[in-house]
Amino acid sequence: MLYLTGNILYMKDRKTLCTQENGCLAIDEDGRVAGVYSGEEFAKQITVREGDTQVDYGDRLLIPGMTDLHVHAPQYAFRGLGMDLQLLEWLEGFAFPEEMRYAETEYAGRAYQIFAEDLRRSVTTRACVFATVHLESSLLLADLLDQSGVITYVGKVNMDRMGPEELCENVQDSIDDTVRFVEETVRRCSYTKPMITPRFAVSCSDELMRKLGDLRRRYNLPVQSHLSENRQEIEKIRELYPNTKFYGEAYDQNDLFGDGYPAVMAHCVYSSPQEIERMLERGVYIAHCPNSNFSLSSGMAPVRDYWEQGLNIGLGTDVAGGFSLSMLRAIQDTVTVSKLYQACMDEHAEHLSVWEAFYLATMGGGSFFGKVGSFLPGYDADVLVLDDSNLLCPVERSLEERLERLIYLAESDALCAKYVKGRMIYQASS
Amino acid sequence: MLYLTGNILYMKDRKTLCTQENGCLAIDEDGRVAGVYSGEEFAKQITVREGDTQVDYGDRLLIPGMTDLHVHAPQYAFRGLGMDLQLLEWLEGFAFPEEMRYAETEYAGRAYQIFAEDLRRSVTTRACVFATVHLESSLLLADLLDQSGVITYVGKVNMDRMGPEELCENVQDSIDDTVRFVEETVRRCSYTKPMITPRFAVSCSDELMRKLGDLRRRYNLPVQSHLSENRQEIEKIRELYPNTKFYGEAYDQNDLFGDGYPAVMAHCVYSSPQEIERMLERGVYIAHCPNSNFSLSSGMAPVRDYWEQGLNIGLGTDVAGGFSLSMLRAIQDTVTVSKLYQACMDEHAEHLSVWEAFYLATMGGGSFFGKVGSFLPGYDADVLVLDDSNLLCPVERSLEERLERLIYLAESDALCAKYVKGRMIYQASS
Repeated sequence: MLYLTGNILYMKDRKTLCTQENGCLAIDEDGRVAGVYSGEEFAKQITVREGDTQVDYGDRLLIPGMTDLHVHAPQYAFRGLGMDLQLLEWLEGFAFPEEMRYAETEYAGRAYQIFAEDLRRSVTTRACVFATVHLESSLLLADLLDQSGVITYVGKVNMDRMGPEELCENVQDSIDDTVRFVEETVRRCSYTKPMITPRFAVSCSDELMRKLGDLRRRYNLPVQSHLSENRQEIEKIRELYPNTKFYGEAYDQNDLFGDGYPAVMAHCVYSSPQEIERMLERGVYIAHCPNSNFSLSSGMAPVRDYWEQGLNIGLGTDVAGGFSLSMLRAIQDTVTVSKLYQACMDEHAEHLSVWEAFYLATMGGGSFFGKVGSFLPGYDADVLVLDDSNLLCPVERSLEERLERLIYLAESDALCAKYVKGRMIYQASS
Repeated sequence: MLYLTGNILYMKDRKTLCTQENGCLAIDEDGRVAGVYSGEEFAKQITVREGDTQVDYGDRLLIPGMTDLHVHAPQYAFRGLGMDLQLLEWLEGFAFPEEMRYAETEYAGRAYQIFAEDLRRSVTTRACVFATVHLESSLLLADLLDQSGVITYVGKVNMDRMGPEELCENVQDSIDDTVRFVEETVRRCSYTKPMITPRFAVSCSDELMRKLGDLRRRYNLPVQSHLSENRQEIEKIRELYPNTKFYGEAYDQNDLFGDGYPAVMAHCVYSSPQEIERMLERGVYIAHCPNSNFSLSSGMAPVRDYWEQGLNIGLGTDVAGGFSLSMLRAIQDTVTVSKLYQACMDEHAEHLSVWEAFYLATMGGGSFFGKVGSFLPGYDADVLVLDDSNLLCPVERSLEERLERLIYLAESDALCAKYVKGRMIYQASS
């Protein structure tokens, strides 16, 4: 057993924050939460045996790790740049030119090394990651992510139109490379798994989409893509897929929309009622990416409405449409956009509270990976150890207040240690 | 003379970013910019004499310091808390209870010490600061700000209604204490100056407002307050000031609206055309506070529209309605809100670019303090030295790109040194 002592906070459901001052988090040999105990309970009920490990984090805060449901690894190199453009111009001006560089594995190695290391040092413990179309560098990314210890799904991207020639594959190569990517990743990696990753329906022909659906079935893989992000994009889908009633149907017609398997769609800023209904039927996850949605002037997703309808929702940083890799920032931005949606679009739409957004970042997105994002018994023990001693305050604050302050004010040095499924994968040098 | 060498970037007007790679910023004995030189020009034209100082900042970036046009020092203690409320409830639930603590100078000393030190370590070189109603602790704040070296205006707050009893002054005490605050601050401080600071028209009676106007004239002081922040607040003003056609007239009728003297009004989210017209006539400054405006669900100010009309605009953090003391974050948030305004409120309203927002944070707000916020000759030499080496990148970036990345991604450790009017007031321990 592994025993971590400190101040423990986690959501147990959509509405309830649990706190345990000076508590103990017990983690079993399989990396799962065995229990959360008060100091007194721990002293009375638990016998620490030989071979057990106990780590005392003192006055620090222990919270569940966070799931980034949508992030583009190759775009990390230009995060914070080109933010004055909208989606389609930004793809042409920034994303595509950068992604072309990943044809060279030497460049990919250098760039992905930075990404994987910064991800390891972040509050993210699980992630769904886009690579590029390139097989070799995508495998390189899979290896680096695997070494980071963060548990990820990663996809070699597929696209065969509406991009620069260098990024447009022919269908058979795209499928063959995807088969190799899937098989190699499964063979080589422990913590990284493959995922079917059509870039978005705009950049995939019917034939490519159909064959990706076949592949998905053959290997029983999950899917990630983009959906209803930007008004111009949705117009293009109407032209390109005249036989669909809504954007998501382009995926659904090709068995890429979560019919009995996990699928996550990024954005959903402008999903129609029909699209929402289909997503509910299929259990499709929405990766809500507020930073990207304001940075690329896409708009504000009505997340409260999705939440009330019972959709599966998590958060994504969407680097580099979003400029920040921090899931704490994603929580902030979720609340920000939700408030502005209320103030400007629909005064009856109660905004998401900071704890509802915290839920989305932990349990909401975590459930895509199983029992992840809480400290309820049986959940995978993904743990962040946070230090708020830099945030000087003239009065004592409750645990809840301390975590709220960290969500709004923490810089990256607040993270002292990070565990994924009970394994420590990061420890700050102090 | 003081010569700072490094990579120099600054706005020279609303539209033009100037860059000088490996340049030199020359600063005269009065702390003013004497010139910006290329390395070659510097070598050829400048003779460094005995008594001159030269500091080589290598590959770092040198940019103008930033002006925070609106910040509440006593609220710094609860920044990042209570962010799920709207203005009037937030005042009652968080701001007023915290401000009541400042009746005790012991508490005020501890809290203001933290604020003043964090302000010194921030990218802010000039600020307009609210204290509380309390004379002694407001003087204490003035002293601490003066010691920080940041050049500030600071105001003892005036209010006589619509708050808890403990914060509501009687009119004569309020005026007497303000006289003492003004005279003492002028006498004691070098870098801190007093400012007339009615909390907002809601919390000031006609009599108090009138007498503050008299005081303002007597000492020829500038004014700061709040304006048209929140819809409920504007409703209240209509009730309380039935003889006004718009909110700002409550100040203007009492000679507190910039008629021949500097005045800055925070927020202006919902200013009517008439209010805007009066502000243009008077030259009133708008302190645009985007973080506060989304955090308290106030709304989105149409800043592009104000900008096109030629209003004086700068940025404010509005701690703790805004949760961040960082003016880099204020730049980000200005762009964010402007993009969402375009995406959701008025698609014809071109959003502010990152450089336009950078202008607002430097020259825009800086002009409230004189020739401040640029490196044009004769401007006060407020200089930030920024290090972006933590933001690893696999390719070389232009100076413009490096600054854009810093605006979006810098944490507080990016600031290496800070000069105000040629005096170094902060240097990071390395």
